[in-house]
Amino acid sequence: MAFVNENFLKLPGSYLFSEIARRVSAYKGEHPDADIIRLGIGDVTRPLPPACIEAMHRAVDEEASSATFRGYGPEQGYDVLIEAILQHDYAARGICLRPSEVFVSDGAKSDTGNIGDILGQANTVGVTDPVYPVYIDSNVMAGRSGDLTDGKWSRITYLPCTAANGFVPALPEQRVDIIYLCYPNNPTGTTLTRTELKKWVDYAKANDSLILYDAAYEAYISEEDVPHSIYEIEGARQVAIEFRSFSKTAGFTGVRCGYTVVPEEVTVRTASGERVPLNPLWNRRQCTKFNGTSYITQRGAEAVYSPKGQRQVQETIAYYMENARILREGLRSVGFQVYGGVNAPYIWLQTPQGLTSWQFFDELLHRMHIVGTPGVGFGPSGEGYFRLTAFGQRENTLRAMERIAGWK
Amino acid sequence: MAFVNENFLKLPGSYLFSEIARRVSAYKGEHPDADIIRLGIGDVTRPLPPACIEAMHRAVDEEASSATFRGYGPEQGYDVLIEAILQHDYAARGICLRPSEVFVSDGAKSDTGNIGDILGQANTVGVTDPVYPVYIDSNVMAGRSGDLTDGKWSRITYLPCTAANGFVPALPEQRVDIIYLCYPNNPTGTTLTRTELKKWVDYAKANDSLILYDAAYEAYISEEDVPHSIYEIEGARQVAIEFRSFSKTAGFTGVRCGYTVVPEEVTVRTASGERVPLNPLWNRRQCTKFNGTSYITQRGAEAVYSPKGQRQVQETIAYYMENARILREGLRSVGFQVYGGVNAPYIWLQTPQGLTSWQFFDELLHRMHIVGTPGVGFGPSGEGYFRLTAFGQRENTLRAMERIAGWK
Repeated sequence: MAFVNENFLKLPGSYLFSEIARRVSAYKGEHPDADIIRLGIGDVTRPLPPACIEAMHRAVDEEASSATFRGYGPEQGYDVLIEAILQHDYAARGICLRPSEVFVSDGAKSDTGNIGDILGQANTVGVTDPVYPVYIDSNVMAGRSGDLTDGKWSRITYLPCTAANGFVPALPEQRVDIIYLCYPNNPTGTTLTRTELKKWVDYAKANDSLILYDAAYEAYISEEDVPHSIYEIEGARQVAIEFRSFSKTAGFTGVRCGYTVVPEEVTVRTASGERVPLNPLWNRRQCTKFNGTSYITQRGAEAVYSPKGQRQVQETIAYYMENARILREGLRSVGFQVYGGVNAPYIWLQTPQGLTSWQFFDELLHRMHIVGTPGVGFGPSGEGYFRLTAFGQRENTLRAMERIAGWK
Repeated sequence: MAFVNENFLKLPGSYLFSEIARRVSAYKGEHPDADIIRLGIGDVTRPLPPACIEAMHRAVDEEASSATFRGYGPEQGYDVLIEAILQHDYAARGICLRPSEVFVSDGAKSDTGNIGDILGQANTVGVTDPVYPVYIDSNVMAGRSGDLTDGKWSRITYLPCTAANGFVPALPEQRVDIIYLCYPNNPTGTTLTRTELKKWVDYAKANDSLILYDAAYEAYISEEDVPHSIYEIEGARQVAIEFRSFSKTAGFTGVRCGYTVVPEEVTVRTASGERVPLNPLWNRRQCTKFNGTSYITQRGAEAVYSPKGQRQVQETIAYYMENARILREGLRSVGFQVYGGVNAPYIWLQTPQGLTSWQFFDELLHRMHIVGTPGVGFGPSGEGYFRLTAFGQRENTLRAMERIAGWK
């Protein structure tokens, strides 16, 4: 008889965003006239940059004629896009990467979810807490999690990030083989300085650990001392894989494009201690279980790096970051304790009056008709916190803060 | 220290199509003027149907304005596309599926590669031989293959398909938990009749096995008694997952779209024998490790089902099948034994004069300047066979057969 991967059966049934949808829908059922403003899920609202639109129209036209038709492309992505990535995202910051180290994909969610394919089941895993659920769930599926007790998986090391430590995770007391870091952070909107990130690179080198570095929100960094790439830190090429995304940078949430950097120097070990480079393994994984990113999408992504594309992307980011400022100031003016929103499009607030995350969710929905995301949905250390996103439309963001002014 | 998935280290280094590329490039290096015709890799050459082009332009324009912008879509695909699939690919053939049973994706390669995520490592695997390499390689990566000896993996059951059995695989002597079937077949271009496919469904029911049915070439079926979907066979809903693709149907090799059907009745077992439905598990896998298919791509795929799209797709398929006829007849006229090419865009020929697949590859390249694919690259039973594809341009197909006329 055919067998199931029993690790899947360990995953708890309900998922954060479906529970939110359920509560909103229940409330709407009882109050059909309620004008609800959604600042919950991390989807963008601004349209794609015109430069990307033009490039995608051209690419669609190429697919219309046999003289210019493009069928299967390289699984790793087209050279022109990889070259643009290398030059703008890395060389411009003094980081020298080889084209063979960049793998274009259909997004950072796929890549952070699939990267575990090339890693052994015996690895111990560390995550900052609260955390993007994909890092944990994909490890549960792969059998690396142990069992779930009181909201924590027994074989996963949780590194609390709360106001108490300024959202800077302490190095783990018990060593971990793989550590996921996401900076600028989802959900807290906070960052690490170069000095702080260097501690992690040094830790990984000292412990032969692997850092999976998710920099999907890199474009939102506004402060000087915040690294845009982990490869700004000396030694990171030996111990870190970096994930990037066009979703939040250029509005590609529905277009689907991201990329993953696997430097040739990154190695892990066999059970007998031999070093194995990961770059050829990820290449083999992608060539076997992925067939490349849509040509049209890649042309759109390439246009992000054109002078016009860069200007347009900056305008969109400025728009969202003005939303972030409006949220931060609006919330503070009525006494909320607010974090993030300076180098990231997320606002992380402390729930008032000792409310739990879900209690505050209900209060905000029922009294203010605003939907956000309960912090505890991202992990145990998210309890007592709440996430709002700056990705909404300006008008809605302003209206939400007008309503918040009535909070007490 | 971080550990590697050691199963990856078992995979032999060189890959079929890179070895082909290497030999072609070496030959071109020595004979720079050789006019080489490529009938090897299964990529298409006809442009996309105009209906798809129009739909994709419209979708690109929707992404250009905040009023119509689409960000994250459902991981399972948009309802409009799923409805079109249900109606045209299934209801029209008397098969009733639920929308929740269809999962739109970026292609059948991803899905056939990733489906193993939800299946236990202990499963034994059967494949027809020769076979599409992804089925085997993805199982090697997952630790289900055992070791490689003389071109065969010790824990994989190979079911030979050769001229001797009319390319109809015998049921395995030793039972298997999971069986991959691809019909119309890549690489042999042959099919199973309803009666023959029913034997497999009955086998799966009797043995509690799971059939992974790849129907990527379904659109090329021309004969009456060949099933288009495994769900035409009674009982298949309990034992089969079906994979479909827009790549070969509508030229989407570079646009990337396919879908997978996981009926709610398909179950596998836990180690203790309890039945578990696979549909919610695949849903969870896709929601965690995939973020939906490009909106633009999905609009293109939907247009395949419009009346205009259907007419245009039929024209393209007729074009390729005329190529197939030209190849079949051209090869036969000089004495080749030829299979396939009637319900599939692949021609499978027996190598002449006792040549091995690779010897014939070299002969064909050196004497005729034609590139095809050595059968042994698809598995041990492919030795002594050779694949040509009907996806080339008409002119090249005709020129190739003019050259073949000089074979002796």
